Amino acid sequence: MPPVDPVALTADLVRCPSVTPADEGALDILHALLSDAGFDCAWADRGGIRNLFARFGPKGHARTFGFNGHTDVVPIGNPDDWTAPPFGAEERDGIMYGRGTTDMKSGVAAFAAAAVDFVTQTPPDGAVILAITGDEEGDATDGTTALLAHMETEAEAMSVCLVGEPTCPETMGEMIKIGRRGSLTAWFTVTGVQGHSAYPHRAKNPLPPLMRLMDQLASHELDQGTDHFDASTLAVVTVDTGNPATNVIPAQARATVNIRFNDTHSGDSLTAWLKAQADAVAVAYGVEIDVTVKVSGESFLTPPGALSDLVARAVEAETGVTPVLSTSGGTSDARFVKDHCPVVEFGLVGQSMHKVDEHVDVAHIRQLKSIYGRILRDYFA
Amino acid sequence: MPPVDPVALTADLVRCPSVTPADEGALDILHALLSDAGFDCAWADRGGIRNLFARFGPKGHARTFGFNGHTDVVPIGNPDDWTAPPFGAEERDGIMYGRGTTDMKSGVAAFAAAAVDFVTQTPPDGAVILAITGDEEGDATDGTTALLAHMETEAEAMSVCLVGEPTCPETMGEMIKIGRRGSLTAWFTVTGVQGHSAYPHRAKNPLPPLMRLMDQLASHELDQGTDHFDASTLAVVTVDTGNPATNVIPAQARATVNIRFNDTHSGDSLTAWLKAQADAVAVAYGVEIDVTVKVSGESFLTPPGALSDLVARAVEAETGVTPVLSTSGGTSDARFVKDHCPVVEFGLVGQSMHKVDEHVDVAHIRQLKSIYGRILRDYFA
Repeated sequence: MPPVDPVALTADLVRCPSVTPADEGALDILHALLSDAGFDCAWADRGGIRNLFARFGPKGHARTFGFNGHTDVVPIGNPDDWTAPPFGAEERDGIMYGRGTTDMKSGVAAFAAAAVDFVTQTPPDGAVILAITGDEEGDATDGTTALLAHMETEAEAMSVCLVGEPTCPETMGEMIKIGRRGSLTAWFTVTGVQGHSAYPHRAKNPLPPLMRLMDQLASHELDQGTDHFDASTLAVVTVDTGNPATNVIPAQARATVNIRFNDTHSGDSLTAWLKAQADAVAVAYGVEIDVTVKVSGESFLTPPGALSDLVARAVEAETGVTPVLSTSGGTSDARFVKDHCPVVEFGLVGQSMHKVDEHVDVAHIRQLKSIYGRILRDYFA
Repeated sequence: MPPVDPVALTADLVRCPSVTPADEGALDILHALLSDAGFDCAWADRGGIRNLFARFGPKGHARTFGFNGHTDVVPIGNPDDWTAPPFGAEERDGIMYGRGTTDMKSGVAAFAAAAVDFVTQTPPDGAVILAITGDEEGDATDGTTALLAHMETEAEAMSVCLVGEPTCPETMGEMIKIGRRGSLTAWFTVTGVQGHSAYPHRAKNPLPPLMRLMDQLASHELDQGTDHFDASTLAVVTVDTGNPATNVIPAQARATVNIRFNDTHSGDSLTAWLKAQADAVAVAYGVEIDVTVKVSGESFLTPPGALSDLVARAVEAETGVTPVLSTSGGTSDARFVKDHCPVVEFGLVGQSMHKVDEHVDVAHIRQLKSIYGRILRDYFA
């Protein structure tokens, strides 16, 4: 089998307009490639989402290298704003344009290409797994979690896992993610009693308690950061009342808070704290405060060690850049994988992801394939 | 001339659908009645608004009793919610229904009827003025102020003035207003820098400074009230951002505050205070805070004395109720009159004003005419 061209594979994937939850043939391309190379492939579809599980080598081997990625992409926005066809994979001056060129069809293509080359050239003493989902950019409820559920049912397991999301802020090779902060959103609704603003004692204005509560939350220092994490942050993202009348005290007001938290906290501990703060203000002001919390991901950390060392050595060997180990940024599907095995993330420069004219340097795709190939060789050496 | 029936006159006025700025013949009815009775009538129209000035007796007399009222009404809202025609003046069981039956065509009718009876039966040593506007419920920019400007131009003056607005909360005769609190509205816009909620240090969230500022304003005690006034009040009436995305820190947020203030303050002193508070928060948080203030009326007081005694004695004689002297409630056109002469307000029970099925007890209209007639007789006695 000749070496797989990761650039051509990226282009093939980009030409499938797989905006979540659509797949449009993207995973079929990978299924065909991996099956041909001897991978056992299975679908782990759920809720109308396609998810591809592929394993080369024996099930349940103690040395099983896993890779997680996604082929779904975010919407293109206004097509007129693009200077290239959003699903054309057009190349100009060594740059490929299209939705998913960065996030993260190139990452999936680079690993698939590296893995096929590796297993066909030097079959490892162990196994290689690819768990590729079509639901990472959406709610992620039927994506990687469905793949992990499938694996549990089938007694499949990864010893370690690499997530191929773009991780480098500006320069190829500069950052490996060894964890992520957690993310939580809380919605507050304060209910008082409507009335005329000339007679505030006959009404119960929900706004003063909401102002007090939001001021207290926004000025509270959650922590000062930990060994591997920045300080947790709390942002009041919106406060709304919608009262058009200056002579009316409103009955209700709402606010939304987003917290990005490190390993000092958990979704539960923060939920308890938010509710306690709200309750204290509610009692002090004699209003009702409803708090609804959604934890979209707990914080997690794969402490620096064998897995991060393995990836860092390969990155440095191929790029000459020494990567930093970081926990910055938003959430990724690593938040699901971390409950099953050590997980780190490494991929391309992410600057154009989710934007108009998303693009990738094709040299970076080839470089990424080389890095992933070296990681596989070193892991099984 | 036979006595004027104030109930029939009220009904005639109610049948003119004079929703501000429309007049629909209401003031013509009064013009005809007063002219016939020997009043000198003049129009003080301005900005498309009709305003009627009428004087009986010599211009510039040192004993000139003035009356101020309005014939315009607020909109009816949804006509299907009414159980009687909104402009029908229908009477059921001694209750007349219709927009303006309380606020305040009945008050105007009662005074016009009392004044015509009085001047035709016992021509006074002095003068009686009616200044009736068609713009009290709207912006009030071309209403009583236009009448007062007309009077200045024409060298007309009132020695004292009675405003016929509904003043009684529940029982006929229970309250005379000798002043009003001032009213001011302030709009705050805080401008920061938009950003991703995962990276708050790269953005400048306008909400924390707005929360802090509103909390400070809402928890500040403006004063503890004065001899004749309740404490001033400040109500945060709305706070809005309109940010639908929980992962975005907004660039701007807005709040509106309404202040009802007593004679401890002025529009200017409060404006200066609000701007100083906003400036301090803006500097502390490094954001811009724009403050726009509209003073819709200064506070005023006609200290208890000859005029309030005159009105109180007449109310007590006709109703058996001893009225309290109050400065409660919203604003009225007395805020304009007070710059020209002592002014007090007395009228009907106001419970149904501005509501669906606005109505008046016709016995109260007759009683109000008796009270106004007694005030005129006593004033000129």
